[in-house]
Amino acid sequence: MNANSHVVGVDFGTLSGRAVVVRVSDGAEVGSAVHEYAHGVIEEYLPGSSTRLGPDWALQSPQDWLDVLRFAVPAAMAAAGVSPSQIVGIGTDFTACTVLPATADGTPLCFETPSVPHAWPKLWKHHAAQAHADRINALAASRGEAWLPRYGGKISSEWEFAKGLQVLEEDPAVYERAARWIEAADWIVWQLTGVETRNVCTAGYKGIFQDGGYPSADFLGALNPGFASFVEKLTVTTPTLETPAAVTPVLAPLGGLAGRLSAQAAEWTGLPEGVAVAVGNVDAHVTAAAADAVRPGQMVAIMGTSTCHVMPSDRLAEVPGMCGVVRDGIVPGLWGYEAGQSGVGDIFAWFVDNAVPSSYAEAAKARGLSVHEHLTELAAAQAVGEHGLVALDWHNGNRSILVDHHLSGVIVGQTLATRPEDVYRALIEATAFGARLIVETFEASDVPVEEFVVAGGLLKNRFLMQVYADVLRRPLSVIGSEQGPALGSAIHAAVAAGAYGDIGEAAAAMGKRTTAAYLPDEKAADAYDLLYAEYRRLHDFFGDGAILHTLRRLRNSATPSLAIDPGTAYLASGVGTTEPPERAQGSEAGVTEVGRSGRAGAHGSEARA
Amino acid sequence: MNANSHVVGVDFGTLSGRAVVVRVSDGAEVGSAVHEYAHGVIEEYLPGSSTRLGPDWALQSPQDWLDVLRFAVPAAMAAAGVSPSQIVGIGTDFTACTVLPATADGTPLCFETPSVPHAWPKLWKHHAAQAHADRINALAASRGEAWLPRYGGKISSEWEFAKGLQVLEEDPAVYERAARWIEAADWIVWQLTGVETRNVCTAGYKGIFQDGGYPSADFLGALNPGFASFVEKLTVTTPTLETPAAVTPVLAPLGGLAGRLSAQAAEWTGLPEGVAVAVGNVDAHVTAAAADAVRPGQMVAIMGTSTCHVMPSDRLAEVPGMCGVVRDGIVPGLWGYEAGQSGVGDIFAWFVDNAVPSSYAEAAKARGLSVHEHLTELAAAQAVGEHGLVALDWHNGNRSILVDHHLSGVIVGQTLATRPEDVYRALIEATAFGARLIVETFEASDVPVEEFVVAGGLLKNRFLMQVYADVLRRPLSVIGSEQGPALGSAIHAAVAAGAYGDIGEAAAAMGKRTTAAYLPDEKAADAYDLLYAEYRRLHDFFGDGAILHTLRRLRNSATPSLAIDPGTAYLASGVGTTEPPERAQGSEAGVTEVGRSGRAGAHGSEARA
Repeated sequence: MNANSHVVGVDFGTLSGRAVVVRVSDGAEVGSAVHEYAHGVIEEYLPGSSTRLGPDWALQSPQDWLDVLRFAVPAAMAAAGVSPSQIVGIGTDFTACTVLPATADGTPLCFETPSVPHAWPKLWKHHAAQAHADRINALAASRGEAWLPRYGGKISSEWEFAKGLQVLEEDPAVYERAARWIEAADWIVWQLTGVETRNVCTAGYKGIFQDGGYPSADFLGALNPGFASFVEKLTVTTPTLETPAAVTPVLAPLGGLAGRLSAQAAEWTGLPEGVAVAVGNVDAHVTAAAADAVRPGQMVAIMGTSTCHVMPSDRLAEVPGMCGVVRDGIVPGLWGYEAGQSGVGDIFAWFVDNAVPSSYAEAAKARGLSVHEHLTELAAAQAVGEHGLVALDWHNGNRSILVDHHLSGVIVGQTLATRPEDVYRALIEATAFGARLIVETFEASDVPVEEFVVAGGLLKNRFLMQVYADVLRRPLSVIGSEQGPALGSAIHAAVAAGAYGDIGEAAAAMGKRTTAAYLPDEKAADAYDLLYAEYRRLHDFFGDGAILHTLRRLRNSATPSLAIDPGTAYLASGVGTTEPPERAQGSEAGVTEVGRSGRAGAHGSEARA
Repeated sequence: MNANSHVVGVDFGTLSGRAVVVRVSDGAEVGSAVHEYAHGVIEEYLPGSSTRLGPDWALQSPQDWLDVLRFAVPAAMAAAGVSPSQIVGIGTDFTACTVLPATADGTPLCFETPSVPHAWPKLWKHHAAQAHADRINALAASRGEAWLPRYGGKISSEWEFAKGLQVLEEDPAVYERAARWIEAADWIVWQLTGVETRNVCTAGYKGIFQDGGYPSADFLGALNPGFASFVEKLTVTTPTLETPAAVTPVLAPLGGLAGRLSAQAAEWTGLPEGVAVAVGNVDAHVTAAAADAVRPGQMVAIMGTSTCHVMPSDRLAEVPGMCGVVRDGIVPGLWGYEAGQSGVGDIFAWFVDNAVPSSYAEAAKARGLSVHEHLTELAAAQAVGEHGLVALDWHNGNRSILVDHHLSGVIVGQTLATRPEDVYRALIEATAFGARLIVETFEASDVPVEEFVVAGGLLKNRFLMQVYADVLRRPLSVIGSEQGPALGSAIHAAVAAGAYGDIGEAAAAMGKRTTAAYLPDEKAADAYDLLYAEYRRLHDFFGDGAILHTLRRLRNSATPSLAIDPGTAYLASGVGTTEPPERAQGSEAGVTEVGRSGRAGAHGSEARA
């Protein structure tokens, strides 16, 4: 390792993959490149096929992921002007739960039978396993499975077990052929190293791995006798030299060395054979390292179409409404908490697309601004409370703290004088109130939140950031990178390469965080306290679902395509949505520009694009 | 009287006056004309003056009213092709409470001192007497004045006593000079006949005349010693031959003969001197005759920017939230009830102006439709409940049944899939639910509603009418005239002229009503019952104002121009609004096209325009 050592971080998103070349000594991002997936999100037809997929399906092509290695990594190297000899490691992060069936040697089944839908990787936002998730949740609740409370009482249809059960029951032949059922986060590392590993993070957050094991064969067999041995498809039992088993089955620790870059992968990437390859990770969780926020109580909010909150802590508690708590799930040695707000940038984009008149679009255009920017300026000119409104930010359901995706949005206080900027501001505030409630819920559960760190695309909206600082009544720290997940992966690569002793040390050197970038204004905070009290009152009133569930039932029974309600459980992975007939947007590290269309955002976030 | 006998009805609105020539035998409307007021609504500067009026002022010019007699009446006669010799009477109706100070001979004070603001007539929507109304209500409540419950517990800042008290306290010289304080409805009759009369309707609904008298001198003196003798300015004590006193002070009965057309008025109008002139009336109340709906239990809803409900009944009850109950107030011999919804067409117009994106405007334009029509078509294609929404129609406050203009609107159930047509439909439904609650409240007070009759501009929206029929679970009758108030005035003229024995007989011959024009669909009605249950739940929750009043207080304290809250009382006249900083729209017979702009509608309604 020397002053010229560099690492490569690769972030695999929903529509594209991004590679960044980072200097090990200080985290300088010296070059990056993006490769758009040729197949994008496969939602209607399989490539080269007239086979129509079912509703709520969402697939990806493994070839697209390999092409990121083949094209984005060399392009980033070229942009960086760094010689391959200076590269000491590569790290990756992925959307999750994006999962695929593979043969024992890691060949994706879709490479063998491209015309078979279930042979393809299921993207995180594949939402066709809702009924299976419902059964898992119902059975786990009735049996009192100890792992269930670790996920706020409900696992998502997006996760490994729900999707796996769907394959078993809808295409047993594929299930049978699938020797391996593997997260793309681990599959890509397998391709880089030739060695199969399973990372702690996806195993815990998406694979229901808790307290040293997966759900029992007894439990799984009760769901379907054929499912009893499902865990065998997930399990690696032989530790490699590089990944000594901390537990059995073997899980590879974050920041660990998964293996060495294979000759094949060296050929794809142009990087030297044998450089360190880091254990796989998830986009949101790896962002904590990029923000140098991996110590207990540092909550990183990745704010985009939705918001994902990740926070290490030395305490284990069952915090109401969290998405998951996983030992070593963000950094080794600490509990990793995840919480989520199902709709954030999504809601603003929906509002701009559906509720802003042409006069505003014209005014924005005349000023060279996006409609978001124009509305933000108008909203920012108001005093707190001037709009007379308060909203509930449940347009995409509520993950934390209510874990109920059948809730919906509420806007209160409109008069004939209410203008679009008023509602826009109220929606921004509502998401801030939602964030405050999550923070307060952690603290009420004796899990302290010491620092609130913002990452993601909404960082660009300084007004919105100030609202959050005022509403939270605390300074906001902000990440110093626009490619947080990729930088985080590079940091993990540096650890895997041995340049630093652990993730914390590497993050301190290479991560980028500005503390107290936004300070709360006391007067505004006092005023927001009054509005927040009303938000809480609405939260309590509508949170029981008495009215909102009734409206949804009436909607579903009145709408032919929704006549069969897909389920009553909340099924989001982190902050994704599982509302089948509506747009599912965002994922864990999902970020979106405030100026971006919600429709365009339907396929993912910019950090992933 | 013969087969060729005709009468003239003149409706004085907010921006114009309309004359219609009507055949006495069958009510055929054979010619009409509109005269726009040269001065419109005087809100900022007095004519020819640089004197700036205060906020929330709204004045009119008596000359404009006289010009309606001079121009619209002859034009209507010309259009009708009717000879003046065929005219047997003229009747008028006016906005109310539109009131002016005059000398003992009826000369408007503004004709003498045009540079003095308080010398001018105050239009119904002059809302600068809020503080005075508040004091009247507070004192009346504390003293337990028997008349207060007849107005739902609150009188409006728009009414005679509040406006009179404002004049006394802000310009005592004008107050002193004002020998008469007179409704424009009575003033115009004075101009036509040369004889001052006071009609039962405005005296009751706007002048707090109950059980044979006005508020006591003791009460008025407690408000301000100078106000103790205010009633003298209202009172006519000498009955004329034509208007024998039923009570003292003398009030002239509706349909009565106020006097005979004077030589001066004959010159203005081109009508024969000496024809019958009907007692003055209010636009909403006279519409009941036009719809032939003057029997007990026939509720006429004049649906426009707002909705005014008028209904005769043989029973006296204190129906919660009604605007007023007045003996003989619609037709002699019955109690006349008035109730109101503060915002109806206003809300739809607000929505179209402020919450519909350009793509809808473009689609509407491409199809040659208004945005309202386009949204209506899209909304009409949905099944009941399909939008998953329920709204509270309180964007302009709530008169009936909550009598609280500090309430505001609520929309519940929005998701990222919610489209403008969904909200548009939910708002239409919310106003229908509001109407249902009014009907149910009457019936719960043992005042039966036998028939629901619709008049006003919203009649044009057939989808909206069907929603009302379904929500109300009863057939809707509709008026058969597009100029209801003017036709009603003509009917009153026919009675005054002796062509019919009473208003009921005349209305049966000349009024126009289609019964059961819309029939409820049982299936839709069943579905609406479920949504209405949620509306009621929201109504109960938000109706106490705990949240909405807090939001309004925060708004007012955050908004410089609203730092002094103008009051806490609901102050609307019928369905007008008194919200000072917002647009006050509509009045009792206010009607608006669904396709009309709310901004344009700020100055009144089409029936008045």
